[in-house]
Amino acid sequence: MNTDLRERIQRSFDRQGLMTTLGARLEAVTEGEVQIALPFSTHLSQQMGFLHAGAITSIVDSACGYAALTKAPAGMEVVTAEFKINLMRPGIGQHFLAIGRVQNAGKLLTVCTGEVRAFAGEPDGPDSPHKVIALMQATIVNVAG
Amino acid sequence: MNTDLRERIQRSFDRQGLMTTLGARLEAVTEGEVQIALPFSTHLSQQMGFLHAGAITSIVDSACGYAALTKAPAGMEVVTAEFKINLMRPGIGQHFLAIGRVQNAGKLLTVCTGEVRAFAGEPDGPDSPHKVIALMQATIVNVAG
Amino acid sequence: MNTDLRERIQRSFDRQGLMTTLGARLEAVTEGEVQIALPFSTHLSQQMGFLHAGAITSIVDSACGYAALTKAPAGMEVVTAEFKINLMRPGIGQHFLAIGRVQNAGKLLTVCTGEVRAFAGEPDGPDSPHKVIALMQATIVNVAG
Amino acid sequence: MNTDLRERIQRSFDRQGLMTTLGARLEAVTEGEVQIALPFSTHLSQQMGFLHAGAITSIVDSACGYAALTKAPAGMEVVTAEFKINLMRPGIGQHFLAIGRVQNAGKLLTVCTGEVRAFAGEPDGPDSPHKVIALMQATIVNVAG
Repeated sequence: MNTDLRERIQRSFDRQGLMTTLGARLEAVTEGEVQIALPFSTHLSQQMGFLHAGAITSIVDSACGYAALTKAPAGMEVVTAEFKINLMRPGIGQHFLAIGRVQNAGKLLTVCTGEVRAFAGEPDGPDSPHKVIALMQATIVNVAG
Repeated sequence: MNTDLRERIQRSFDRQGLMTTLGARLEAVTEGEVQIALPFSTHLSQQMGFLHAGAITSIVDSACGYAALTKAPAGMEVVTAEFKINLMRPGIGQHFLAIGRVQNAGKLLTVCTGEVRAFAGEPDGPDSPHKVIALMQATIVNVAG
Repeated sequence: MNTDLRERIQRSFDRQGLMTTLGARLEAVTEGEVQIALPFSTHLSQQMGFLHAGAITSIVDSACGYAALTKAPAGMEVVTAEFKINLMRPGIGQHFLAIGRVQNAGKLLTVCTGEVRAFAGEPDGPDSPHKVIALMQATIVNVAG
Repeated sequence: MNTDLRERIQRSFDRQGLMTTLGARLEAVTEGEVQIALPFSTHLSQQMGFLHAGAITSIVDSACGYAALTKAPAGMEVVTAEFKINLMRPGIGQHFLAIGRVQNAGKLLTVCTGEVRAFAGEPDGPDSPHKVIALMQATIVNVAG
């Protein structure tokens, strides 16, 4: 993947008001995979004080969408058509990392899977000890840019 | 549905930090159906300036969860196990309304469907002219309270 | 919907080897809605003797796909990109009816919902006493014919 | 996993009328993973002559369910609550293999992912050259046996 695409994804990410509101940041962009980090904050909680499913979903949806973009034909934009998410464990942790991965990139549709990892403290990297709290399977459409 | 349950849902909603952060409010609670309203704000946008899929999903996920709670056995809490959402149109509008409805309430699992409506201006009610921008199908689990 | 489309759907249905193998028949075709009927048979069972989820899914997937076809631009074919199904009750009954309905037909993608009804005996019509045993939400793509 | 469980899965599989009707066979059972093989036959086709989505779905649904059973508490049975499947490529091939894998096994719910591989000829094993034609994400419930 060229630097242009990486910068293009960063610029797009920076224009997402919701990502700023949540406090999410673009952590890593490689061909076919994008990672988005989110520190816990009480302004993102559900009624028990854990990370809200809506926040969990928001970061992994964005990670899948941008992963698809790394595989889209030149000049195309992407739009998420749909996704499904299993919330396997409560959103307990101080740091969260959403990883979106392309599984199949067609001319028109891209299928991605995503996961969200919860870390008790600040992780050294994506593979620091964690629990996978959510799994996503998403369909993204290439559209004229 | 008794007033107690309505108040219990309002109290739970008020404890959801994310709903406050988004600016969402609990609009209507009846047996088997819950509505959550969300005015548009740029702090909720995606990169094109429309309502972010994460915000759309957050309100309809909460609407489905609380709808399930209206049908849960006394003393039980609910947790969303999973959901699927189709984002059928861009999140263009000034006001949004998420409606969650129970389709089947079992002893253990409740299946809900949800939709999100977009209104060009301030709606007079849920059936004011609108476009349905998203459809959800969700599975909610009853858990000991 | 014109008669041509109805006949085109019947011809397509008749070419589906699996529908013949299951014993399914095309029951009704109207614009935006298709119904497929399936009598129970032990050759369709799961391990408890009820209708297998695979058979339930097969008929409602086909009903959704053909419903989408009734709304596709002239000359286009349809392909199911993905679906999600909740199996809400066991497949107990003598007759089953899958109903697929278009919820939103875009230029490229059509979103359908589907349900499967179980009847204790031979139903007089789709609204004879029944239980809804499954709910589907599907994404169908228009492709060049 | 003990031999008893393997035999119990084989016996359950043999009672599934639909698996016999399709011509599917239980290929491999290990802890957390089950494989089901299906040779192509015209009696399983869709209207273009390829493997019908319903047949693809049936084998990977069963593979996920039995994978969940390998992780279920002793004496429990499993029931599929719901699944989502992306049909990424047409069902073209002479042999198909569905693989179901447990991703998270809770006390009540198990989340599995599944894939279906298409082989041009008779494969030497699961990793013989193939295309992944479908991806599933499923939720399975443990129920009293």
